[in-house]
Amino acid sequence: MKMIRYEDLKDFVARLFIELGASEANAKLGAEVLLSADVRGVDSHGVARLAGYVRLKEAGRIDLSAKPVVAHETPSTATLDGQSGLGLMVAPEAMALAIKKAEQCGTGWVAVSNSSHFGIAGYHAMMALPHDMIGIAMTNASALVAPTFSKERLLGTNPIAMAIPAGEEPPFVADFATTTASNGKLELLQRCGEPTPSGWVQDAEATASNDPDILKKGGALLPLGSDKERSSHKGYMLGSMVDILSGILSGANYGPWVPPFPAYVPMPANMPGKGIGHFFGAMRIDAFRKAHEFKAEMDNWIRRFRNAEAIGEKQVVIPGDPERAMEKERRKFGIPIDNQLFEVMSQLADQYGVNFFQ
Amino acid sequence: MKMIRYEDLKDFVARLFIELGASEANAKLGAEVLLSADVRGVDSHGVARLAGYVRLKEAGRIDLSAKPVVAHETPSTATLDGQSGLGLMVAPEAMALAIKKAEQCGTGWVAVSNSSHFGIAGYHAMMALPHDMIGIAMTNASALVAPTFSKERLLGTNPIAMAIPAGEEPPFVADFATTTASNGKLELLQRCGEPTPSGWVQDAEATASNDPDILKKGGALLPLGSDKERSSHKGYMLGSMVDILSGILSGANYGPWVPPFPAYVPMPANMPGKGIGHFFGAMRIDAFRKAHEFKAEMDNWIRRFRNAEAIGEKQVVIPGDPERAMEKERRKFGIPIDNQLFEVMSQLADQYGVNFFQ
Repeated sequence: MKMIRYEDLKDFVARLFIELGASEANAKLGAEVLLSADVRGVDSHGVARLAGYVRLKEAGRIDLSAKPVVAHETPSTATLDGQSGLGLMVAPEAMALAIKKAEQCGTGWVAVSNSSHFGIAGYHAMMALPHDMIGIAMTNASALVAPTFSKERLLGTNPIAMAIPAGEEPPFVADFATTTASNGKLELLQRCGEPTPSGWVQDAEATASNDPDILKKGGALLPLGSDKERSSHKGYMLGSMVDILSGILSGANYGPWVPPFPAYVPMPANMPGKGIGHFFGAMRIDAFRKAHEFKAEMDNWIRRFRNAEAIGEKQVVIPGDPERAMEKERRKFGIPIDNQLFEVMSQLADQYGVNFFQ
Repeated sequence: MKMIRYEDLKDFVARLFIELGASEANAKLGAEVLLSADVRGVDSHGVARLAGYVRLKEAGRIDLSAKPVVAHETPSTATLDGQSGLGLMVAPEAMALAIKKAEQCGTGWVAVSNSSHFGIAGYHAMMALPHDMIGIAMTNASALVAPTFSKERLLGTNPIAMAIPAGEEPPFVADFATTTASNGKLELLQRCGEPTPSGWVQDAEATASNDPDILKKGGALLPLGSDKERSSHKGYMLGSMVDILSGILSGANYGPWVPPFPAYVPMPANMPGKGIGHFFGAMRIDAFRKAHEFKAEMDNWIRRFRNAEAIGEKQVVIPGDPERAMEKERRKFGIPIDNQLFEVMSQLADQYGVNFFQ
């Protein structure tokens, strides 16, 4: 395990992205988006995915020099074709467009096709906050999730993020996969060889399982809710809503046809659209009511929930609080990188002639 | 148990609403919205609530003659003050405004304060379908749900509905409470004296419970996910998002301050806003891509999911299918009304001098 300074790690990633074809501005942006996962403690979505992105580029599945194109627009909407770009760079451009439209007519909504993985949804949603807007970001992803009653995997973990500004309190930032457990949590258990809690996964016959390796054996992640009796159909509906807004509204792929993240996995047959899809929204607070009034009520909401009577020493958690605490710590003490990941990054540095950490 | 024809039941409700002060047009509209629950099989949200609405009117908490007022607007947004109106009548007006704005600038978003219960969210979301739009509806409600780790009830069951048009297939209509189980399901078990499945409720000390009467003993419904290990914090975040968009963005009450449905329950102290809040959205499909292309892809999505390999004789359910099947049956054979509810309605008919069923 090594601790690497946030700025050093970001600089390394940016230089690697330049070698892979990105402009300097886009390389820095993509590195910032990727690192926002590591620094907020979402280790599964940060530099742990760096080699995966490189392999996608090497396989010709993504293009770091791509310039997204607006395919269609109205005063409050746009459809953006990501031109096979890296989601880490395409998504902020789409969100910036949503914000611009919100400035002009109250809200802005941008559906994106022909993109790829965009890091953590929360980063993009939070772009709205300095503008006194509510930000929304979601994406579909390759199918790992079985709808209720299904043996087949038809949906991705399809996360939703919503960032809402407050006044004196920090903002409300929800960012969650629409499954019981994220794939990242499953990977942690795989490394430790520990069983999953019940309700996280099923096997290839749709029987309940506790095997963290079950996805490699034809199993599936379960929608939020876990099983029918505990309303997994609601998690399935939620993941479907994300899939349709991100995939179908934009002209991207959807359901079982979303392209896989590992470059060695063949692309699905008969893909109906282009790349991965995202959906972004920005709503100006003062398009509804005075921003300072709204923020004062948000402070009241946050304080009431945070101070609710809770179990033992626990506290009701305000969405965004744990990630903020982690970010404070990691910006100060650095980001922990395990030896295996360090070695992978060292090899990428060699391969692309990028200076690595001393 | 009696079977009553849909038209007869609707007519009765409309005549009662007129006696309570509604205009003829609003009475018919409110009856249609209320009955859309019964006819779709959501018995907890239909005429079972009629007496509750009457008691709210008698207590002076709602006004069936209210005329909602647009408090603020931009090209794509509006804030509507429901003027203490009945949600069944306020909500369709708000959704119609969202649709009008979407016609003009691609999408329309309307936050509503000072309203009351609006029936099933799905009715309002579905209003968008004939316009080739995606419809979204949500509402907050009085606090029955404990956030993860909380002993206190701070959120309502806060439902979300999304209606999405398809081509040859019927539309995708999701409509669900952001809890593991709806209050309606709990009431069914109370009547039968049966225990709840695990993961539905907790007692006043936030300990897991199977008692369907636990809400009367200080217990709470659990957010979708049931417990922390199965990500109840995601259901809590989802319910919070609905609460903030419906309650805070509009200037309504929120969290533990949302007014109760039963008229005999005192109003919360220090209410920060006005009435119950809703939030509606309408997005024109062709603000993103050609509507006929989108609908063809929706057909493909629906068929792929419906025909997925499933457990035994089961099938993956397309959101909206069960309610459509129920509606077909109930429009043909009538709506089942149990004797107790029939008696309640008969008394309301006497009290307000409205003709009742022969």
